Amino acid sequence: MAPETVTLADLVESRDIGQLRDWLEEQGALDIADELARLEPHLRPVPFRLLPKDRALAVFEALDTVHQSELLDALADVDVDELFVGLDADDRARLLDELPAKVARRLLDGLPEWARRNTNILLGYPEESAGRQMSPRFVSIRSSMTAADALTKVRRAGLRSREVLVLPVTDDERHLVGVVDLPDLVTAPVGTRVEELTNPDTYTVQVDDDQELAARLIQEADLVALPVLDHEDRLVGVLTVDDAMEVIEQEETEDIHRAGGVEPLSVPYLEAGVLLLARKRALWLLLLGVAAVLTVTVIGGFEDRIEEVSTLALFIPLLIDTGGNSGAQASTVVIRAMAVGEVRLADLPRILRRELLVGMMLGAMLGLLAFVPVWLFIDIGFATVISLTLFFICVWATFAGGLLPPIAKKLGIDPAVFSAPVITTLVDATGLLIYFSIAVAVLGI
Amino acid sequence: MAPETVTLADLVESRDIGQLRDWLEEQGALDIADELARLEPHLRPVPFRLLPKDRALAVFEALDTVHQSELLDALADVDVDELFVGLDADDRARLLDELPAKVARRLLDGLPEWARRNTNILLGYPEESAGRQMSPRFVSIRSSMTAADALTKVRRAGLRSREVLVLPVTDDERHLVGVVDLPDLVTAPVGTRVEELTNPDTYTVQVDDDQELAARLIQEADLVALPVLDHEDRLVGVLTVDDAMEVIEQEETEDIHRAGGVEPLSVPYLEAGVLLLARKRALWLLLLGVAAVLTVTVIGGFEDRIEEVSTLALFIPLLIDTGGNSGAQASTVVIRAMAVGEVRLADLPRILRRELLVGMMLGAMLGLLAFVPVWLFIDIGFATVISLTLFFICVWATFAGGLLPPIAKKLGIDPAVFSAPVITTLVDATGLLIYFSIAVAVLGI
Repeated sequence: MAPETVTLADLVESRDIGQLRDWLEEQGALDIADELARLEPHLRPVPFRLLPKDRALAVFEALDTVHQSELLDALADVDVDELFVGLDADDRARLLDELPAKVARRLLDGLPEWARRNTNILLGYPEESAGRQMSPRFVSIRSSMTAADALTKVRRAGLRSREVLVLPVTDDERHLVGVVDLPDLVTAPVGTRVEELTNPDTYTVQVDDDQELAARLIQEADLVALPVLDHEDRLVGVLTVDDAMEVIEQEETEDIHRAGGVEPLSVPYLEAGVLLLARKRALWLLLLGVAAVLTVTVIGGFEDRIEEVSTLALFIPLLIDTGGNSGAQASTVVIRAMAVGEVRLADLPRILRRELLVGMMLGAMLGLLAFVPVWLFIDIGFATVISLTLFFICVWATFAGGLLPPIAKKLGIDPAVFSAPVITTLVDATGLLIYFSIAVAVLGI
Repeated sequence: MAPETVTLADLVESRDIGQLRDWLEEQGALDIADELARLEPHLRPVPFRLLPKDRALAVFEALDTVHQSELLDALADVDVDELFVGLDADDRARLLDELPAKVARRLLDGLPEWARRNTNILLGYPEESAGRQMSPRFVSIRSSMTAADALTKVRRAGLRSREVLVLPVTDDERHLVGVVDLPDLVTAPVGTRVEELTNPDTYTVQVDDDQELAARLIQEADLVALPVLDHEDRLVGVLTVDDAMEVIEQEETEDIHRAGGVEPLSVPYLEAGVLLLARKRALWLLLLGVAAVLTVTVIGGFEDRIEEVSTLALFIPLLIDTGGNSGAQASTVVIRAMAVGEVRLADLPRILRRELLVGMMLGAMLGLLAFVPVWLFIDIGFATVISLTLFFICVWATFAGGLLPPIAKKLGIDPAVFSAPVITTLVDATGLLIYFSIAVAVLGI
């Protein structure tokens, strides 16, 4: 926003290659990627071609897959193959998913044999599985090796830095025995046996396990890498912490979008076409609209009474908003507690007891606060109706908000579908029923 | 849930120490911590005391600070001091925040001099700052050293594994020159100079920088550790990826809670008292309730017309729900895009143009779909009113949902306060105004 900030777009427009080169030298790979993504796609190759090879790869790695695929599209074939082989196998697999099948095939064919094999291994695992996200390259060592032997093996492997932070220890059948942290190997006396350095708490996942499960395990256990095993419990890859963080960000975005009643967008906001943005919202908006027809039916059933006492209509939005809000609050808190593993299905009775109490407290508070103003502005009969309705709506909505997400989970549905908009719409019709029933009973209409 | 699963609670109740010990040996530290947290607080020391010392520390580290502080409370003083000194300085600082001042003081006094100093350094930085989360222990090396010299220094330092994954390179004034990844040091020929191994893209943060900013940088740049500098740009600590993941989880929980109209809970759901749960929701519920009084005023202004045409009341919830939902969808998507850095304030015009178009598409869809049913069930006049209202409410709510979060950010407020419930409540009164104005104009009432 500050006027003195020179953006990459300005520099590209000015066509001053010298200044552009200076700017690229000053910035980190991350900032360059960030600015690159904000350029018009056809302009992106201009600064990108000015980068030295190793930085170009670092910048390319920092781009979203959407931007990667656009950039590949804009670059000449020769540059493309070079970039593509420089990627990690898991990043390559993700990018291939994004590309048109024809381009993907051509790129795969252009890879050297070893890289193609690694990529194809990952592509064989289901999307969003731990296997799809792992790196198939690792250095495995043996219990019987000395620390010095093991370090020699690490040196010879020539892998990337993040691929050797944790070293899996395997037996003759490629079964995992444990893991050793590279620093422990480095700091141990040279003659120490790997056996003595092996971590007693070794966590693993299966190739087919959900990527989020694996990523959350890395997070909870403070790991830098997690061994991934096949169905015969043989080691086939390692999931690293940087990929875990990416998975978590992606899953959290999905959860947050669902919580707002939006189908998850898989591309960055500004890259998504307006039509895509609308499509991701249309279905929920429509479903919720159809569900809201129930409220029309409920009000229709009491239309005569409203005609008689039009004051009844006054409080409809206030009451259903309050129900919706308290339901949304409860479901938000419970869904999050489930997502981070703080509560389990077995805790359902405890959740319900707590939400019922919370609903009663909040309902009592609102009911008491509303009584005097409504009495003053209308009459004591209406004040009674509004206070009682606020109480029961709060209790009911809070209870429903606590109940529905665990029920969804039990049925194998993502609890996050019970988002604020869904809960709001669901408790609206029942809230109106509560309201009119109390009004009929108290006011005798 | 499965009946054959033996829980820790069952074992503790059975008082079978042998079985308890077997169970503890079979489980990972993470699972033990998980089960321990689910025991009644006074029972937790029983299994905990059976753990060998190093595992006890691992389990203790895996507990939430709330559970850590409860466990310390239940253990004897002697065990406590030992556990406390075994923690990382940043974990210790977090735990001290949680403890009663008296206990905190006693524990600090019980620490050896070096540990107390490290902890006090962190406690001197503001809460939620990068300085508060970093580890003040690291091994800094010099550009002029050889790889072998540097490795010797790492070996002598005797730090924990995760503290040496990345080695900061500093000059005589403790200014950061760059960083070297430990694996690069290990795999380089022994005579290589540190200079040649230094990473060209070195990211840093300041001690006072927000913890989320630092954690997101680690995530975006795929780092395992990030150097933290003081105001004179001298290196004072290193923030590691495991702490970054914890920070991100905590920040996402806050965002998700806010998105549901709940003040963030800082303790696990089942640990929070019912009163605390209610208090975290009461303020927002009350504020939203007060804001909803506006809807009463709007309807009050049109009460005569409703008395005349009671059919008007039928559609109130349907229309305001749709407005609320489309507004919530827009704000959810925009808030998330801002949180992960996909859009900036400068993108506001682009956001508004897109949301306006999306709102028009969704509004047109709903308006068209509603026309025929309303015509069939009521009449063509009402069908026109409902269709037009749906269109304009959708456009307005989507526009407001896209506009308000960036405006909040510009004013220095967390954009997440424009949660689904807040947007819903805000667009309700205006939605009713749109509805009644169109009804008056079209139906001539």
